[in-house]
Amino acid sequence: MSADDFRSFFNPKGIVIAGARRSMGFGSGLPPFLKEYGWGDRTFLVNPSGGKINGMKVYKKIADVPDPVDLAIVIVPANAVPATLEEIGARGIKHVIIESAGFAETDEKGIALQENIMTIAKRLGLRVIGPNCVGVINTNNKFASVELIEESLTPGPLSIIAQSGVFGNILLDFIYQHRIYVSKAITLGNRIDVNECDMLDYLHDDPTTKVIGMYLEGAADGRRLYETLRRVTKKKPVIILKSGRTQEGKQATASHTGSLSGEDEIYNGIFAQTGTLRAESLPHLIELVKAFTTQPLPKGNRLGIVTSSGSMGALATDIAVSNGLVIKPLSPSTVKQVRAISPEWMNVKNPLDLGPSGLFNKLTPMVINDPLVDMLLLIIAVPYSFIKAVKQTGVKLADVFGNPEAIRAQLPESKPFVITVVGNADFASEISGVAGDSIPVFTSPEAAARALAGLWKYSMTRLKS
Amino acid sequence: MSADDFRSFFNPKGIVIAGARRSMGFGSGLPPFLKEYGWGDRTFLVNPSGGKINGMKVYKKIADVPDPVDLAIVIVPANAVPATLEEIGARGIKHVIIESAGFAETDEKGIALQENIMTIAKRLGLRVIGPNCVGVINTNNKFASVELIEESLTPGPLSIIAQSGVFGNILLDFIYQHRIYVSKAITLGNRIDVNECDMLDYLHDDPTTKVIGMYLEGAADGRRLYETLRRVTKKKPVIILKSGRTQEGKQATASHTGSLSGEDEIYNGIFAQTGTLRAESLPHLIELVKAFTTQPLPKGNRLGIVTSSGSMGALATDIAVSNGLVIKPLSPSTVKQVRAISPEWMNVKNPLDLGPSGLFNKLTPMVINDPLVDMLLLIIAVPYSFIKAVKQTGVKLADVFGNPEAIRAQLPESKPFVITVVGNADFASEISGVAGDSIPVFTSPEAAARALAGLWKYSMTRLKS
Repeated sequence: MSADDFRSFFNPKGIVIAGARRSMGFGSGLPPFLKEYGWGDRTFLVNPSGGKINGMKVYKKIADVPDPVDLAIVIVPANAVPATLEEIGARGIKHVIIESAGFAETDEKGIALQENIMTIAKRLGLRVIGPNCVGVINTNNKFASVELIEESLTPGPLSIIAQSGVFGNILLDFIYQHRIYVSKAITLGNRIDVNECDMLDYLHDDPTTKVIGMYLEGAADGRRLYETLRRVTKKKPVIILKSGRTQEGKQATASHTGSLSGEDEIYNGIFAQTGTLRAESLPHLIELVKAFTTQPLPKGNRLGIVTSSGSMGALATDIAVSNGLVIKPLSPSTVKQVRAISPEWMNVKNPLDLGPSGLFNKLTPMVINDPLVDMLLLIIAVPYSFIKAVKQTGVKLADVFGNPEAIRAQLPESKPFVITVVGNADFASEISGVAGDSIPVFTSPEAAARALAGLWKYSMTRLKS
Repeated sequence: MSADDFRSFFNPKGIVIAGARRSMGFGSGLPPFLKEYGWGDRTFLVNPSGGKINGMKVYKKIADVPDPVDLAIVIVPANAVPATLEEIGARGIKHVIIESAGFAETDEKGIALQENIMTIAKRLGLRVIGPNCVGVINTNNKFASVELIEESLTPGPLSIIAQSGVFGNILLDFIYQHRIYVSKAITLGNRIDVNECDMLDYLHDDPTTKVIGMYLEGAADGRRLYETLRRVTKKKPVIILKSGRTQEGKQATASHTGSLSGEDEIYNGIFAQTGTLRAESLPHLIELVKAFTTQPLPKGNRLGIVTSSGSMGALATDIAVSNGLVIKPLSPSTVKQVRAISPEWMNVKNPLDLGPSGLFNKLTPMVINDPLVDMLLLIIAVPYSFIKAVKQTGVKLADVFGNPEAIRAQLPESKPFVITVVGNADFASEISGVAGDSIPVFTSPEAAARALAGLWKYSMTRLKS
């Protein structure tokens, strides 16, 4: 299967919306959304009642829609989908996103209906995403088969494959708030045709995709997943959050996209053998993506920690070491450099606890430039009452904590550098503003350490291959 | 040791600040802070240079300070502490908080100095918190030995014991943002006298403390910790975040409060045998505290889940089941009730995936009132574009998602009810506003499930005892 087969999903010449609705509800926001983002002239609404929706003409039949049109988005009720597919096929459209629900995720009747549309799609030679999904998003040309808030459409390096429509949609609602930006997103739904492997292959070749994040309930084809991941992870990191670890979790997923999840141990085996990272939770997925979309891969596993709180340094150390990183002493020359400018009480070691010295901006570059350090975690834990007092004097935060982007610019390219701010959310978001888009800011020592360990884990896969 | 011995730490009659400083830096914010909160008349600054600070008279010697005075806060340089303790003893003050750093957490010299002040304190019969700490906070009378932002001083049911000063201080900077409010906080530092067991005993008897959260690097006395925890957890839940799980983490902590952490397995044993909850990370500590400070203890471990996303329900299920909860079918009468008002496509089971039905406010009470359900997790995952559209129509969020406080008010007292909102942070904070202080709102399905599992784990301890 070549990637060209999927181009119409992400960059259609013309779009039919079958079942465009007038009343508020699922799909009603799509026509105005597409119009707003410049797709109005290429979007053709179809509904037997005709008339107009949002000032856009409504065609009574798919057959009436003018050329060019190569993608159909189907939001008609489930039992109208078979006939709609026939019309789509007759109109010469080959790419279809079926968003309608009411198939294998519901009951026996739904399963039969799904088998029916699968047969029809195959006979007509259609490529189908869905049913029971919200389709695709492409931020580069602002095309999406689901309405989104504007902020979600900022182009970036992450692409998302989500088995569940709601999951993918919701993810886009908030990851930009973590300064994570997306290239493409695909929600697969019940997968009567296009599955996660098709999309992994597509994203493997997609030049704007640098990192792939996936939510999976169960593989469509375990063997193919293994082979696809092995190929894709050689080029791009793949991070998978998989539910169904427990029998009960499996049953929960089986009910809603109609797939029976496989055994958890098998998945762990597939992920380990292919260098795929498994996220332990939704927050862990976000943390890993945050690190991978912004940081280089480390050349080694030696972590340097600079912290204003010994406790936070210890908590980060525990998680880092438990996850494959090492904490080595600083090199003698770095120790000398640090001692030359530090107060006598400072215990110059790794983690480097700079206490209330405020020497963030001087010591951070020294430690990260140490040849015995492969990556750096800066932990800022400063009482907010003190921050407020500092700000009243007119001193800028960047002068105290260093200008992270300037630090990043001076760094060896292969050294990841991340920040943790523990404290008041307003302060954390200010530091996040100072850090910019190239330095991720975490809000717990453990999250940052775990994300850095993830970078190293994947880095090993790449070093081996 | 009776709790009365510690009253002067939390509710002093008069306070000496030894080493009150004029220049910006550690401790300089304390006099204006105490003045602002009504302690100005009872706070006596001491500095050999005399004069005034912030309009407050500065005494040249501790001996000059008028009655009554029963607490001394020491912020002089480390090497001046021995002489200062002698003056404090001579003035008849028995309670001392030594905030100065530069003792066992630094080097051999510091260790010797610490032994020296320990001997002096013992000879003078002083009760000492510290050195190398920020002392105490009592929100009920707004007394604190460290300056804090105003929001941190809202009284609440949590009390905190932190070995590290920065840790305790920082925690207070942001937990109010999670709607967690504090009664007392104690930072212990190097513990030459008062230790975590003294404070556990004190909080055991403190009527405004309902939940105890602790950050520990190593126990001052393992045997006593075991016995104290066994006693305290019979009355109040104790949640401990302990660093030093790894050798490297131990070394990191050893360097900064001068205690050598014990073996991690021994701690796990102590915690398990005493019904103490161990937080796996700083975010986990916050999550547990959030649940314990707001929710009743469940009578059983049967979790009901109502969700608008099947995936999020599955992720919560995995974590819940892995941590000792069970997901049982709903009772026939609840199934009947739900079916009567639900669309045909809805698969009526537990987790109950209500899809795009919007039936949050109707189905949530039905499920939580099911006699086969001991606690409820409501997962709200709704696309933000939809929320925005709903709000434009003038509909209120509480009408869509239910009024959680009203739901809480109708509930059987022993059923915990928590909410997870996955999505845009603005939406999460709006729902949090709707939920009020009595229903915690989490931002991942895993966090909520893990917190509920924590409630059940502690509940078992109480049911057994």
